[in-house]
Amino acid sequence: MTMSYNLLKGKRGIIFGALDPNSIAWITAERVHEEGGKFVLSNAPIAMRMGQINELAEKTGSQVIAADATSEEDLENLVKKSVEILGGKLDFILHSIGMSINVRKGRAYTDQKYDWTQKGTDVSAMSFHKVMQTLYKNNAMNEWGSIVALTYMAAQRVFPDYNDMADNKALLESIARSFGYFFGRDKNVRVNTISQSPTPTTAGKGVKGFDGFISYAEKMSPLGNATALDCANYTVSLFSDLTKRVTLQNLFNDGGFSNMGVSDAVMDMVTEN
Amino acid sequence: MTMSYNLLKGKRGIIFGALDPNSIAWITAERVHEEGGKFVLSNAPIAMRMGQINELAEKTGSQVIAADATSEEDLENLVKKSVEILGGKLDFILHSIGMSINVRKGRAYTDQKYDWTQKGTDVSAMSFHKVMQTLYKNNAMNEWGSIVALTYMAAQRVFPDYNDMADNKALLESIARSFGYFFGRDKNVRVNTISQSPTPTTAGKGVKGFDGFISYAEKMSPLGNATALDCANYTVSLFSDLTKRVTLQNLFNDGGFSNMGVSDAVMDMVTEN
Amino acid sequence: MTMSYNLLKGKRGIIFGALDPNSIAWITAERVHEEGGKFVLSNAPIAMRMGQINELAEKTGSQVIAADATSEEDLENLVKKSVEILGGKLDFILHSIGMSINVRKGRAYTDQKYDWTQKGTDVSAMSFHKVMQTLYKNNAMNEWGSIVALTYMAAQRVFPDYNDMADNKALLESIARSFGYFFGRDKNVRVNTISQSPTPTTAGKGVKGFDGFISYAEKMSPLGNATALDCANYTVSLFSDLTKRVTLQNLFNDGGFSNMGVSDAVMDMVTEN
Amino acid sequence: MTMSYNLLKGKRGIIFGALDPNSIAWITAERVHEEGGKFVLSNAPIAMRMGQINELAEKTGSQVIAADATSEEDLENLVKKSVEILGGKLDFILHSIGMSINVRKGRAYTDQKYDWTQKGTDVSAMSFHKVMQTLYKNNAMNEWGSIVALTYMAAQRVFPDYNDMADNKALLESIARSFGYFFGRDKNVRVNTISQSPTPTTAGKGVKGFDGFISYAEKMSPLGNATALDCANYTVSLFSDLTKRVTLQNLFNDGGFSNMGVSDAVMDMVTEN
Repeated sequence: MTMSYNLLKGKRGIIFGALDPNSIAWITAERVHEEGGKFVLSNAPIAMRMGQINELAEKTGSQVIAADATSEEDLENLVKKSVEILGGKLDFILHSIGMSINVRKGRAYTDQKYDWTQKGTDVSAMSFHKVMQTLYKNNAMNEWGSIVALTYMAAQRVFPDYNDMADNKALLESIARSFGYFFGRDKNVRVNTISQSPTPTTAGKGVKGFDGFISYAEKMSPLGNATALDCANYTVSLFSDLTKRVTLQNLFNDGGFSNMGVSDAVMDMVTEN
Repeated sequence: MTMSYNLLKGKRGIIFGALDPNSIAWITAERVHEEGGKFVLSNAPIAMRMGQINELAEKTGSQVIAADATSEEDLENLVKKSVEILGGKLDFILHSIGMSINVRKGRAYTDQKYDWTQKGTDVSAMSFHKVMQTLYKNNAMNEWGSIVALTYMAAQRVFPDYNDMADNKALLESIARSFGYFFGRDKNVRVNTISQSPTPTTAGKGVKGFDGFISYAEKMSPLGNATALDCANYTVSLFSDLTKRVTLQNLFNDGGFSNMGVSDAVMDMVTEN
Repeated sequence: MTMSYNLLKGKRGIIFGALDPNSIAWITAERVHEEGGKFVLSNAPIAMRMGQINELAEKTGSQVIAADATSEEDLENLVKKSVEILGGKLDFILHSIGMSINVRKGRAYTDQKYDWTQKGTDVSAMSFHKVMQTLYKNNAMNEWGSIVALTYMAAQRVFPDYNDMADNKALLESIARSFGYFFGRDKNVRVNTISQSPTPTTAGKGVKGFDGFISYAEKMSPLGNATALDCANYTVSLFSDLTKRVTLQNLFNDGGFSNMGVSDAVMDMVTEN
Repeated sequence: MTMSYNLLKGKRGIIFGALDPNSIAWITAERVHEEGGKFVLSNAPIAMRMGQINELAEKTGSQVIAADATSEEDLENLVKKSVEILGGKLDFILHSIGMSINVRKGRAYTDQKYDWTQKGTDVSAMSFHKVMQTLYKNNAMNEWGSIVALTYMAAQRVFPDYNDMADNKALLESIARSFGYFFGRDKNVRVNTISQSPTPTTAGKGVKGFDGFISYAEKMSPLGNATALDCANYTVSLFSDLTKRVTLQNLFNDGGFSNMGVSDAVMDMVTEN
């Protein structure tokens, strides 16, 4: 299962959002490490207390810097320290951050508590703008660097239980395009999002009916659901020099689901009833 | 120029955002009136002081109710009073509300002041959720009613000067889809957005380089830019019974721009240099 | 159920593909007639022998002209005679033509007989180019005229039983955009496609598993499947002056299916198993 | 400039369409060779006579098999011999084939000669179906193999000079999705298209106004046009195990053009006039 091609040798970056070994960001950090990349791990102070991020740091020879990704001050500190620690400007960033209080508290989409909604938007989407603005203003990215955020197809199509996270992801993807233009034009840096299959992470498991949905997605996708490792590998390819002029894109890593209308396997389930 | 087909006879609604005779919402109100629809006009208290909305109210036999579209309380009052005044549940809603302080103050997209950004998001996008949530909870829409919000192609593609309004529009369109699902499933109400050509409204004129951009869009679009009247007519068709099962859609009213890569007219301008 | 707004008063056109009272084109012809439009009906010679088109002609005061829509000669004759009969240039065209021999004969998509495939492409997609080229060369459309072809979402997403008709529809939609540019630029004529819910027409009924699929689509769509009458009404709106600057678009008339990832109703069916 | 990561070690394939050192397929063959992949080169008999493919074959240790990609018989022979020569089933396929007689002969899109159009469709799009059907029926692909075809954004948006190639590319992309479903479901093989920036290949140079267009695309794209080498690298990533669950996708390798509305550089050109 382990591969190494030295695709990221000499590259430096920051990986946000590794909580535990089920996290996509965790597995991506392992893969980036195998490919020769060096990085700083960052997470929200509260997530770090609950998480096992120090294990990952040890395993990958990384340092951990806590940062609330909605705080410009924390991000400023993170970016500056990361450049210092890693010994130069950055080549890659992974943003894997998302949270909805409305989802957590079981509040219906048609009955939002708007200060919760706003908090979710700030954490899940605006944080990506803030990360990029901090990098941009500090001129902290190397030319042909690569910034990736994780997203979900609910940004394009309705998945009722995804609730206000759908809107947060749509906003996140728009921010990727908008900022990607300026980061491309001014710094030759690419910005993309990966729209990943539903993945049984610790965060995902909190969503109502998630198991049934994973199985539905599996049956809809001609190649089955993309795993967290598949996502880590795809991210490695986007951090590498193989994809230097891919930018402003939302890239589906989903076994084909996004372009399915219906599969034979789903039709079979439906007509059995 | 004036047409009347009685397409909206017996229908009731609310029209948000008529500021002055250049506003799309203003012209839509006139067209809806010609087509036999009755409505309440609403605008932010501050916009109303600057605007000439009373003229429009008089011309169309409408009442005006001030409402801050970010205030749940104001919207609750507006919806309840509208149903009372118009004598029954509502059939149509036009949301034509948008504002970016970053744009107004000339703040670059890569140098956002985030409390301004958040205010813009609240006014331009979350207000649409709040309007729909108020209507939904008050069960204020008739079956087969139609809700329309105005948007712009910057939600899909980069127009650098559009700044954070691009992201606000992406969020707005996502909210249309997300809420549209529940409004369709539970109340048989459709929700769509119209993505309009750049239009020389009083609001639009504030955007940097807007005249040059209008002329570029004109040259890119095989049928030229859609006017405010074109938009009003399209909105009438979406409020009418001719489009009962069109929902969750983002509909381009733009002379074809959205599906252009390049036009001969633009290539001519570019190669003359 | 019957409506009339005089939306098409004084307008002239050609309607292709009315086979029997279940046909979308048939119902559209009835609605266009109610709205005051005059037209010539056309169908392939063989379809006309099987169909009941003369009933429709009588009911709507129309003449019928047989034309093989893959024959430039037949189309030339049709267009010239239509202008003559109707007393002037044309304002609207409905293309509702499609056929796959591979589907009819139960040939799998992975085992195509390519001369059948080519015949299907010619009838289902290239015929639309030929119709437009004939109209364009004969300068037979009035300014602000409207050309509509019917299509299906299989052009964007996979519906396995749709077989090679999916590819034909993708080609058809591309032709609409490509020709729409020239028709817009040179003649101020709009060209759009309507992507309709699966509809129980006589043609549709031939597709394997069609009933199960209709029921699946119904459950996926927040407003349910759009009916043939809904499609006729939508087409009327696109032929009318309400949509003068809508062009190059593929417009979904599908109760919202196209923007659904999954509905609660489908998840219920799937998790019951 | 040369990189090698051993990404394709042990993988076998067929590369269609290498004409001369400017061809994307040529450069891809070189990169695949550097990455450890083995392959057969194939081209149309007539293209081979004009081309320098034997140089490439020598350089990469490959054999050349002539095949008319519209002939099922030729493809059958090619696939069988390739498996034999390479010593096992195939892991990757590159389809880089396209041709329009209407373009070559300067025939307008509104004045097509339809037997030329049909020939172009057969060569440029149906050939891809035929290649896949031959592979599928001969069970010639290994699990997790990867099939890639090159396409262009004219499939989604209008580029007037691209003529009927736009429609051919739309058909090609649809075939990728449609066949991709069956190849995924039945053989765990992925199928994708890369939508590449305009590239100054020998074929591209034939298109009217191509130089002006390349320069326009360069100015529209925040990272500039993707080169043939960029395309080769992206293709390598799609052939590799890093992208195992990416399928049915159309992937833009275009410096960001596809998601641009307008760039500052283009606005500058336009407003100078």
